[in-house]
This record gives sequence, C-alpha cells and structure tokens, in this order.
Amino acid sequence: MKACGIIVEYNPFHNGHAYHIEKAREASKAEVIVAVMSGNFLQRGEPAIIDKWMRTAEALKNGADLVVELPFYWAVQSADYFARGGVKLLQALNCESLCFGTDSPSESDYQSFGEFTAANQQLIEQKYKEINQQHLSYSRQMTQVFQELYPSLHLDFSSPNHILGLSYAKENAQYEHPMSLLPIKRNVSKYNEEKIHQEFASATAVRNGAFKGQWGALKMVIPDQTLIDLTQKKLVSWEDYWPLLKYRLISSSYEELQQIYQMTEGIEYRLKEKALKAETFHQFIESVKTKRYTWTRLQRLAVYILTNISAEEIYQGWNNSYLNILGMTEKGQSYLKIQKKKSKLPILTKQMKNTEKYFKIGVKCDRIYQLGNNGIAEQNSGRFPIRIKNA
Amino acid sequence: MKACGIIVEYNPFHNGHAYHIEKAREASKAEVIVAVMSGNFLQRGEPAIIDKWMRTAEALKNGADLVVELPFYWAVQSADYFARGGVKLLQALNCESLCFGTDSPSESDYQSFGEFTAANQQLIEQKYKEINQQHLSYSRQMTQVFQELYPSLHLDFSSPNHILGLSYAKENAQYEHPMSLLPIKRNVSKYNEEKIHQEFASATAVRNGAFKGQWGALKMVIPDQTLIDLTQKKLVSWEDYWPLLKYRLISSSYEELQQIYQMTEGIEYRLKEKALKAETFHQFIESVKTKRYTWTRLQRLAVYILTNISAEEIYQGWNNSYLNILGMTEKGQSYLKIQKKKSKLPILTKQMKNTEKYFKIGVKCDRIYQLGNNGIAEQNSGRFPIRIKNA
Repeated sequence: MKACGIIVEYNPFHNGHAYHIEKAREASKAEVIVAVMSGNFLQRGEPAIIDKWMRTAEALKNGADLVVELPFYWAVQSADYFARGGVKLLQALNCESLCFGTDSPSESDYQSFGEFTAANQQLIEQKYKEINQQHLSYSRQMTQVFQELYPSLHLDFSSPNHILGLSYAKENAQYEHPMSLLPIKRNVSKYNEEKIHQEFASATAVRNGAFKGQWGALKMVIPDQTLIDLTQKKLVSWEDYWPLLKYRLISSSYEELQQIYQMTEGIEYRLKEKALKAETFHQFIESVKTKRYTWTRLQRLAVYILTNISAEEIYQGWNNSYLNILGMTEKGQSYLKIQKKKSKLPILTKQMKNTEKYFKIGVKCDRIYQLGNNGIAEQNSGRFPIRIKNA
Repeated sequence: MKACGIIVEYNPFHNGHAYHIEKAREASKAEVIVAVMSGNFLQRGEPAIIDKWMRTAEALKNGADLVVELPFYWAVQSADYFARGGVKLLQALNCESLCFGTDSPSESDYQSFGEFTAANQQLIEQKYKEINQQHLSYSRQMTQVFQELYPSLHLDFSSPNHILGLSYAKENAQYEHPMSLLPIKRNVSKYNEEKIHQEFASATAVRNGAFKGQWGALKMVIPDQTLIDLTQKKLVSWEDYWPLLKYRLISSSYEELQQIYQMTEGIEYRLKEKALKAETFHQFIESVKTKRYTWTRLQRLAVYILTNISAEEIYQGWNNSYLNILGMTEKGQSYLKIQKKKSKLPILTKQMKNTEKYFKIGVKCDRIYQLGNNGIAEQNSGRFPIRIKNA
C-alpha cells in the first residue's frame, strides 16, 4: 500500500483543500492520503475557528484517509519547525511522497534546494548566526541567508507557501529515504486574500465570511460538512482568549514571564505594559508590533503565554514525538494496521495512563482552548479516532 | 487631638457601621475616628462588591475622619494576621483607643485576655503546634488552645466578631503603649444573617439584597451614598473572576501552584482536579471543601491563586508596611498633619516612583480586581485621597 503525505491546518477545510487532496492522489498515484494536521492552535499563533475533531471529520469526508495531529510543539512554530514536525510524522508513517501547494511550483527547484541544505548545514547555521544580529524577522533572515549562499535559486520569501515548501524540502533531505516531493500549483486565491470568488477561497476569507455570517457566498467555496460545522458551532477567535491573556500578563512577574518559550530580549516588559492599556487582542498586538516582532511572531508568543509553555516543555515534546490518530477511513485503517508494526514513533489512538508523557502538553493546551467557548467538547479524555467508510 | 481607631471592611457601608462610628466617638471621647479598611479584597477571601474608593467616600460621609487602607497582605488573612495589621497601622497613627463591635462585650475580658497572651506567647505557640497535627480549622484550633490554657475566659469561637476582638486584644497587648479597648455591643443582626429588617442589616444581607435589586428594603438599612454607589455601579462577585481562576489552575503546573502563599499539604492536586469540572466559583469551592479546608480558608486561597501571590511577596509586604491614605475630612487632615511628623510608618497619599516598593503588591492585586468588571476605575495611578468637609 502506497501513501502520500500532506501537511495541513484546515482552519477550516475548504474546496481548495479538497482540490489539493485530489491532485495529491493524482500526482502520487498513492492509495492512501495521510494528512498531518495542526491541532487546536495553529502555525501562525491562532486558536482554530472550530476544534480539531470537527476539522478531521471534514477532511475524512473530503478525500483524506488518515488524519494525524501535528502536536502543539511542532505546529505553533515558524516554518522550519512546523516543517520538521510534519515531515517527521510522515516519515514515521513511511509515506512515499509529500505533496504540497505552492504559488511557484518547480519540483527540481525544491529537490535541489533540499539537497543543498542537507549538504551545507553548518555553513547555513553559521550564516544565520551572522544575520541574527540584525533586527529582522525570520523570513527576512532566511531570504538573506540563501541569497548569499545559493543565489541561483528562485526565492520568494514573501509567499508563506513557498517558504513552507522550501522548509519541507530541507527537512525531507535529511532522511535516509526522502519522500519524493510533489509541489502543485495552488488553485486558490492568494494566501491572505480576503474576498470570496468562484469555487475557491483562502481559509482567511472563509473565516472572515463565517464571522460575518455570509453563508450564501461560503456555500460555494466549502464542502457541506464545513458549512454544517461553521453554522452549528460558536466560532472561536483570539478575542475569546484575550481576557485570559491579559490576566496572565498582568498577574505574572517578569521572572515568571521569562520562563515562557521564546520570551527573549526583554519583550516581556513591553508586553506587560501594553496589555494594561489594550481592550482587545487586536489592539494589543497592534500596539506591541515592531519590524522585528511581526504580527505572526507576536501571535505565536501570545499562544505560548496563554498556554504557559516553557522552553523545557517544548524540548520535552520534541523528544517525545508520537502519532495521535484523529481519524481514518477504512483504507486509512488498513494502512495504519501495517504501520503499527513498522513505525518508529508510538501510534496512539486514545489517552491512557501509560502514555501520559506524550499527551501532557496537548491536554493542557486543549483544556485552555476549551476555555474560549463553553460549547467546545472535551478534546482528549475518552475520545477515539473518528472512523468513516470510504465513499 | 485624640483619635480612636476602628478596623473595618465596609463591604458595603451600612447603618450598623454608622452606629459603630457614633458609639466609638461616644465611648472614646476622641475628636477623630481613624478607620483602617480592607482594600479591594477582603478578609474572608472575597472581592469587594464595590471598590475601595467608593467605600471610603461612604465612610467619610457617615462619620469617619480618616480612612487608611489595610494592605492586601494583612487584609486577606485569618483573624490573627488581620488584627496584627490593623493594630499595627492604628498604633503607627498613635490612636489612643480601639473600638470594635462584638456580640459579647466585656472590656475586662478582652483586657485580661490580651495580657495573658502577651505574657504566655511561647506556651501558646507550643500548644498550637500540638493541636496543629489534628485536622481542624483555625478557629477550632484556637478554641482548643485557649480552653486548655485559659479555661476561665468566656470563649465563643463560633462568632467571628468575638474571635476578631480577642485577636485585637492579643496584638494590642504587645505594644509599649497599648490602646484602650472599647468593645461595644453590635446593634445589628448576627454576622451571617441574611434577612433585612428594621434599621440594621448585616453586610451579607445588604450584598444579597443588592444583587437581587431589593432597593426598597435596602434604603432602610444603608445611607444615601451607599445606595447611590450600589445602584449606579456593576456589583462585583467572585463569579466575575471564576473564568480567570479556572484558567490559572488549568494552565499552571503543580510546581507553579506550590509557589502560591498557603498552598500546602498537596491541596493543589485537589484544586486542579476540581477546577476542571466546576462551572461556577460556588460549585468549585463546594466541591473542594472539607472539614479542615473551610469555605473561608478556600476562598482566601483562591484569592492568593487569582492574584498569584507567593509567600515571599506576603513576607515582603509585612516588612514594608505603610499607611496608604484613601480619604479624610478636614479634621482627619489636621490629625494627619500632626502624625506625619510622629508616625513610625511612611504615610503615602499618592503612588510615586520612589515609593514603588510599598505599592507593588497592592497595584498588582487592584489591577486584577479591575479585570472583574470593565467599569471599575483605575485604583492607584493618579489617584489622590478623597477629601470632604465636615458636616
């Protein structure tokens, strides 16, 4: 049985995601599509609009065969760590290929970039250290590093998808048996585009539409299951957690805030000061933002503060990676049965006493996610993978 | 100029409090009544129904001449520490007498109890240690200690006011110049009585009436200023802080919770477990309560958790006591002028850079108090003592 891996967020699942799965199946000729999906907190430092279980059901009903949770400590990260976690889980599940959407697809470009980075790790790290002294965002630093080291490569670091693709390539190239890379042209509006048109819209546009209740327009760009989920549940946004974040910042000492992952360079002073005056999360981030501390970087830091995550917890997570199965089709289940004997990481389908060390961080973060909305169901204890029949 | 001290909470100010001030003036023959008043968190571990500034104005308009804040680290405490702080501040302001309400008044009883405790400190501490091994509440322990050591004394430890009176006597007897003790019979319904009748009602009854909007009945038992304050402001209760407390308990590790003042004997495990299931503060305390952990003790612990107060902060507070002036009449102001030269503690009338060490804990706790209700005004920065003319 051949499997093709994809690394996703589905916040929420829309037609562009269904198209991606379809293309992945075509390009890979795999029988099984394995989706590694962020849980309840997302790569760019946001709570998911609906919970991981609903997003899993949407994916399974629209082409995915197996949905595995990308744990918090990999998911809420800049592109490089997000890619490291995603590729690690797909490798552990022995996927033969990795299919990802991009705005500038060129299989050989990604391939050669991956090989270059695998061969020049020390050189790249060295360059990063040099660049790091300048006050630039991560993607600006990455642009500089590779413009100097590898000028022949086409680089578009203003596109988050292009950065992600390159990060996948870089991670994948480190493994003994790299997956074949299948970049596909994204058939959706640009990542951040906010309007809905025709059959496809970005997840950002879908979320905006959902918060505004534009169900007529949304119907055209999301599958039935997503429409049901969005209309029947309270939709979650950062504002739901703002009172808790503000409280945490006001009630914690500088010493306590310094224990938080990524709390560096004295940013805790600025955060505490601005939290006092801000009335909304939006106001807060707007008032803290600088060239160096971009919106996304601050949002991620805000998630770390909200979830009270220390650097030690993140490192512990990295050293205790596991496969948390959120759902599967019958085909996915057959594939999983084979992998249970072969996988290098533990495959978990429920929370148990003896697997506590794996679930610890996830359980904490999910409980905090639940505080944003009384209507969110228990996320871990007593939950089993969603199973659906293949169409 | 002679001053009589009283130690109060005014949550909120009612006719019984006005009666107490009137009797204090009569019994002491003092020109000035100095009220040491809890701030925004109260002795029994509750947020004040309205803020300390409003309660100060109520007191000044109804007989008090000087209102001084009893800082958090003295106020949110069992009777013995509450009394220690209150007596300390009144001593620093050179009050000649201390007048307090009680259900069983006997000047000589309090006097002799104070003298007995001052003379037998080591013996009492020794007895406490013996008793402490049994799983009893603080007042039950105190009953046992003194029934064994001082059986001739009339003791009614089921009355909070009687315990407080004895604690005042005990503290006062330690000073070189003890204040004369003026116990007066309380002319109000019993401490916890919930019904309103005639001219007097307990503060508990007033709060219940206010939450139910029983303004007709309340008018009879509270002065005009209190009625205005209660009807014009959102009333604060523990439920307003429950989402924050629940979040703090869920998001903190056991190690972090163990840093909280009074978090002993592994109670943090029980608190974290019960917080998950409770939907209200009331449900939460009800589910944690045991014989040893009474409602009041748990409420106080909940305030320490909410305000994230460590034992170190409390001890620092004790060692940096100060007089935070909340308000005064003209007479109060004249008295204060004299005390500025004589007082052993710093007298502060506004928050300044060089007095930060005094205000630190108070500012933190007040900011958290403000989170319970958007309508609460800034409590410290830029605030000056309330001044009113004598009638």
